[in-house]
Amino acid sequence: MKVVVDAMGGDYAPHEIVKGAVIAVQEFGTELILVGNENMIKTELDALGPKSSKNIEIFHTEQVVTMDDLPSQIIRAKRNSSIHEGLRLVKDGSGSAFYSAGNTGAVMAVAKMILKTLPGIDRPAIAAVMPTVKGHTVMCDVGANVDCKVENYIQFAIMASAYASIVMGKERPTVGLMSVGEEDVKGNETTKTVFKQLSELGQRGIINFYGNVEGKDVFRGTSDVIVVDGFAGNVALKVSESAGWFISKMLKDELKSSTLSKIGALFMIPALKRIKKKADHSSYGGAPLLGVNGVCIIGHGSSNSTAVKYSIKMAHELAKQKLNDQIEKAVTVTDSGITS
Amino acid sequence: MKVVVDAMGGDYAPHEIVKGAVIAVQEFGTELILVGNENMIKTELDALGPKSSKNIEIFHTEQVVTMDDLPSQIIRAKRNSSIHEGLRLVKDGSGSAFYSAGNTGAVMAVAKMILKTLPGIDRPAIAAVMPTVKGHTVMCDVGANVDCKVENYIQFAIMASAYASIVMGKERPTVGLMSVGEEDVKGNETTKTVFKQLSELGQRGIINFYGNVEGKDVFRGTSDVIVVDGFAGNVALKVSESAGWFISKMLKDELKSSTLSKIGALFMIPALKRIKKKADHSSYGGAPLLGVNGVCIIGHGSSNSTAVKYSIKMAHELAKQKLNDQIEKAVTVTDSGITS
Repeated sequence: MKVVVDAMGGDYAPHEIVKGAVIAVQEFGTELILVGNENMIKTELDALGPKSSKNIEIFHTEQVVTMDDLPSQIIRAKRNSSIHEGLRLVKDGSGSAFYSAGNTGAVMAVAKMILKTLPGIDRPAIAAVMPTVKGHTVMCDVGANVDCKVENYIQFAIMASAYASIVMGKERPTVGLMSVGEEDVKGNETTKTVFKQLSELGQRGIINFYGNVEGKDVFRGTSDVIVVDGFAGNVALKVSESAGWFISKMLKDELKSSTLSKIGALFMIPALKRIKKKADHSSYGGAPLLGVNGVCIIGHGSSNSTAVKYSIKMAHELAKQKLNDQIEKAVTVTDSGITS
Repeated sequence: MKVVVDAMGGDYAPHEIVKGAVIAVQEFGTELILVGNENMIKTELDALGPKSSKNIEIFHTEQVVTMDDLPSQIIRAKRNSSIHEGLRLVKDGSGSAFYSAGNTGAVMAVAKMILKTLPGIDRPAIAAVMPTVKGHTVMCDVGANVDCKVENYIQFAIMASAYASIVMGKERPTVGLMSVGEEDVKGNETTKTVFKQLSELGQRGIINFYGNVEGKDVFRGTSDVIVVDGFAGNVALKVSESAGWFISKMLKDELKSSTLSKIGALFMIPALKRIKKKADHSSYGGAPLLGVNGVCIIGHGSSNSTAVKYSIKMAHELAKQKLNDQIEKAVTVTDSGITS
């Protein structure tokens, strides 16, 4: 069971990617295929010591997708990029999961083209793991689908529920529907219909439907899963990340503002570091693209070796736990009612 | 120029409302009409000292809208509530602005019914002032309209721009459109059309259009105004408030976790208090319901006397600066192109 890693994707590729990959092999015993420019990958591996290439194969590719390439251009002009070749390795069974910290739009488009979607799933969706006071919550979709129909939400609920059961180790994770109030009647025209259909799936025991949740419930951990359209989900994700940045910036500025607070800060460094670690998305690994026929993890462009390491671990785990079998099973039980 | 205050609205009404009202009179010299149960208001005023009722009139009402009342019920069954009577006082010219920290849905519905919308405005919208690293940004809509057409966004842009120019003291505030990426082509089907129309309004000099912004731009203060549909805007607002709560909770827990951090915390208390003040929405006053024919400020249900004081100040300021004249002027210049 090998994880295929796009060595060329991400702001700090290939250095941080290869470094994270080597650490993943050493810490978790994962077997890997690094896809990208062989010379560059070998240089990075050599710099990491004589035993760094243990359990690592290299698949050479010439073409590299940049962060600025448009998905449409990539599909036409870069058919042999590290993203394409990596996903083909998963498609043909050489690898069991794919991970890239590269251009998100490109990975989504190419994954959908090469891996195709699972039976009963119209559109893949991105799930993000958010920290909460209780632990974590899975929010889906966070940007793959900015115009959603009712059936898309239903599929997000089923896919994110299966994903949450694996990453959170809960057999029946609760599923909340993002709305503008917690009462059943709150929502826009689409989410009101979604509410009824999710309630029905809940009554049939297919998901564990909690009901409506609001923006404030994200960090409260009110439900294990939050189903949301990709537009509002993307806004929520980016506002969350940015709120942490804003508060820590204010904190840093204030700590520098007086001798008294500088002294206080010295005492508090360990506590502040623990908070940073708790709120830092690196340790949750990348976000899975749910609904494609194969495991595909998309990392943050700014991923460092720690983020890479945990993403590889997650990719391996999702393949091992057969995430897609669980999604397919739930879709089959739900029957034709959920697809368009 | 009198501000009409709903003495019965809010989780801590009438106590905090009357207290905040008295402070507003004392600090800013505002003249007020308190609407609600006369006995209860008088009891509160008496408790605040012999001169507390200076510049304050009382308008007695029997009916009170609770937080649980549905807007539809209120319109039918509570025609003489403090919200209704207060808004009628603005409608007939006895007062120049209305403020309530009561049931938001009820205030919106009754304000639209009694005050009506401004010419050229289809639907009123709520604007919220958010703290940023640069100062503040005005986000509109944050919950009044969960299903928006293109023309609604355009009207939000014009109204929020006029509001921002008053509260931020900027003649030509920049207007960003909330999207899932900063590139011009990013967005959902509706926001892509909105983008084109806002660009055109920008070229005509009616607004100062910045372009697309993302969730992370809220706290960066990238644009002075952020235009967004009421669903995503409401999610963004509540996620923001909740992120602050989450981080301060983690901080408190960590500060209690060791003697070292307890000592550090003592030194840092002044700095932490300044941050709390900066991020606290109380000092920005309530949120205006833009687009109704009269000034109407809606406060947070949990408003304390400080929030009430600043909301009254803002209500007075918006009436004095003739916010609605500015909106009407911009709508007229934009001509019939913006209304449905």
